[in-house]
Amino acid sequence: MSSDTSSQSLATGTTVQPMIWSSGGLRLLDQRRLPQATEWLDCNSAAAVAEAIRSMAVRGAPAIGIAAAFGIVIDAQAGRDYAAAETVLLQSRPTAVNLHWALGRMRGVFDAGGGAGRLEAEAQAILVEDVTQNRRIGEFGAALLPQGARVLTHCNTGALATGGHGTALGIVRSAHAEGRVERVYATETRPWLQGARLTAWELVQEGIPSTLIADGAAASLMARGMIDAVIVGADRIAANGDTANKIGTYMLACCAARHEIPFYVAAPSGTFDLNTDSGAQIPIEERVGEELLHLAGQRTAAIGIEALNPVFDVTPAALIAAIVCEKGVIRPVGRSGVERVLGLS
Amino acid sequence: MSSDTSSQSLATGTTVQPMIWSSGGLRLLDQRRLPQATEWLDCNSAAAVAEAIRSMAVRGAPAIGIAAAFGIVIDAQAGRDYAAAETVLLQSRPTAVNLHWALGRMRGVFDAGGGAGRLEAEAQAILVEDVTQNRRIGEFGAALLPQGARVLTHCNTGALATGGHGTALGIVRSAHAEGRVERVYATETRPWLQGARLTAWELVQEGIPSTLIADGAAASLMARGMIDAVIVGADRIAANGDTANKIGTYMLACCAARHEIPFYVAAPSGTFDLNTDSGAQIPIEERVGEELLHLAGQRTAAIGIEALNPVFDVTPAALIAAIVCEKGVIRPVGRSGVERVLGLS
Repeated sequence: MSSDTSSQSLATGTTVQPMIWSSGGLRLLDQRRLPQATEWLDCNSAAAVAEAIRSMAVRGAPAIGIAAAFGIVIDAQAGRDYAAAETVLLQSRPTAVNLHWALGRMRGVFDAGGGAGRLEAEAQAILVEDVTQNRRIGEFGAALLPQGARVLTHCNTGALATGGHGTALGIVRSAHAEGRVERVYATETRPWLQGARLTAWELVQEGIPSTLIADGAAASLMARGMIDAVIVGADRIAANGDTANKIGTYMLACCAARHEIPFYVAAPSGTFDLNTDSGAQIPIEERVGEELLHLAGQRTAAIGIEALNPVFDVTPAALIAAIVCEKGVIRPVGRSGVERVLGLS
Repeated sequence: MSSDTSSQSLATGTTVQPMIWSSGGLRLLDQRRLPQATEWLDCNSAAAVAEAIRSMAVRGAPAIGIAAAFGIVIDAQAGRDYAAAETVLLQSRPTAVNLHWALGRMRGVFDAGGGAGRLEAEAQAILVEDVTQNRRIGEFGAALLPQGARVLTHCNTGALATGGHGTALGIVRSAHAEGRVERVYATETRPWLQGARLTAWELVQEGIPSTLIADGAAASLMARGMIDAVIVGADRIAANGDTANKIGTYMLACCAARHEIPFYVAAPSGTFDLNTDSGAQIPIEERVGEELLHLAGQRTAAIGIEALNPVFDVTPAALIAAIVCEKGVIRPVGRSGVERVLGLS
């Protein structure tokens, strides 16, 4: 399947989008098949959306939140039970807080007596706001980069991971539009290869000079003076600024600290979980070892070996030079900075 | 093809071996095909051995040195030109110093008037000495580990990378035989997956409890208190102890330092290059980006992306708790310690 995305693209002004909404159904660009194929997955129930999230047909914390909101709308339009839809969606991925945040917004509308129409408007608002927020993040973040910046990024935090434009990769997009970016280095991001498959695909489409590296090569590039800044996204940010993100993020933060390279986190304010005091309380999803033992459908690892496949790690606030959200730049990163920029103090 | 390795195994007392010598030809276990298939590659000229090294049918610094020595013997037995054989072998891989070291030993025999017989005896001696040295490294290294050690290792430094037993993995083997090892964590080691394919294969064969992780997950395990020591091999060690090893090694060293986890290098004394003053002078091989863009024969990365594929990185001596060689343990790591243990001062 393929589809014309022009109407939706006009709505948010972005060229790459992970999903298209039309009343009664959500079409998801199947990110498991990229970049080899552009296939769309039609979801006609909250359960189908939940399964698409669980199986990573759609991934990226903001995109997951938006997809879940539309999952609620689908079931509401079909007259199905609200609580059941909410439960199946909440259980699809344990770490991404945007999922909880988006479903909380939908729950607020529902509890206020909102029907399918009001729920649909709320989901649309979440999508459009996400893109708007990402453009703000892009502006704030681009201002942090030097002219001719060589930026290292991890996983995929681009248009595919969000409603459009992207978070960490949104900063790269904005900075590139301002002529500030000399080159982007993208880690391939094992085991799912989001960097090699998705970030590389977006960077090539944007015409941004970019180079793929093995995850383990990042420290070597830092030592050789080839990296000016590291920018990553976030799946959940605790009240003190500790950040859960794709496995490998913490390794990059340790190495950046050693080389005194600024390490930035980019995420919309919906990524903050102020009920979580610090990173120690963030539940870390572990996925099946099979993802590490196979690649591209082939068994790569020796038969009999066990595998440990944590999906996220936690980077302590002390290693983060700044967190960029749509409300501003949190720097230094810590409880008071988080509260000030989020408008809580 | 497959072959009975029992006679050679008896010679060195090891169960896994990367090569079998019989007069006039060298059979190399094709490590590109492991663990899916056990295929042997017959090399009947120095040029064929050089090509096997270049294409990584045989890899691992000590194994490359041994294979190259037998490459010289093959051409000597066939009456071919010595200098031509030496040149093609020297050019096969730029970073591994064992290659230069082994060819230097062969050159010494040749310059002293040694014919094919003396050259063959010298190559056999290099092989047997390597295994003997590895057992010594194993004993010295095992004594550094606590009871119940949880060891992280990188790439493959086992029997496959050497004449037998292994260097860093040889320490694991020796420590396991002493009942000291609770678990080994092996990084998969992109882009070539030596950890997933080769180290995992050896660990399963040995019955050592072991777990495969993504390269980027190592720092997270360190932060969670799951790693007691990191042990890696070396492709070249400078006079001051700076160590070139598989890409990703330096990243592990940076992370281990942050978590105050001892970081050990294991290598025979032939790996030291005393003509190289420090790591800054070590030439770092870069292989084609294709190795990063494809996996298991399939294109994984987006079309159009560039790739940077450095094969090695350099870990400064300051990050290395000890270097273990067959002559003893160099600790602290530095110029004077290197000279003392190597018997140069």
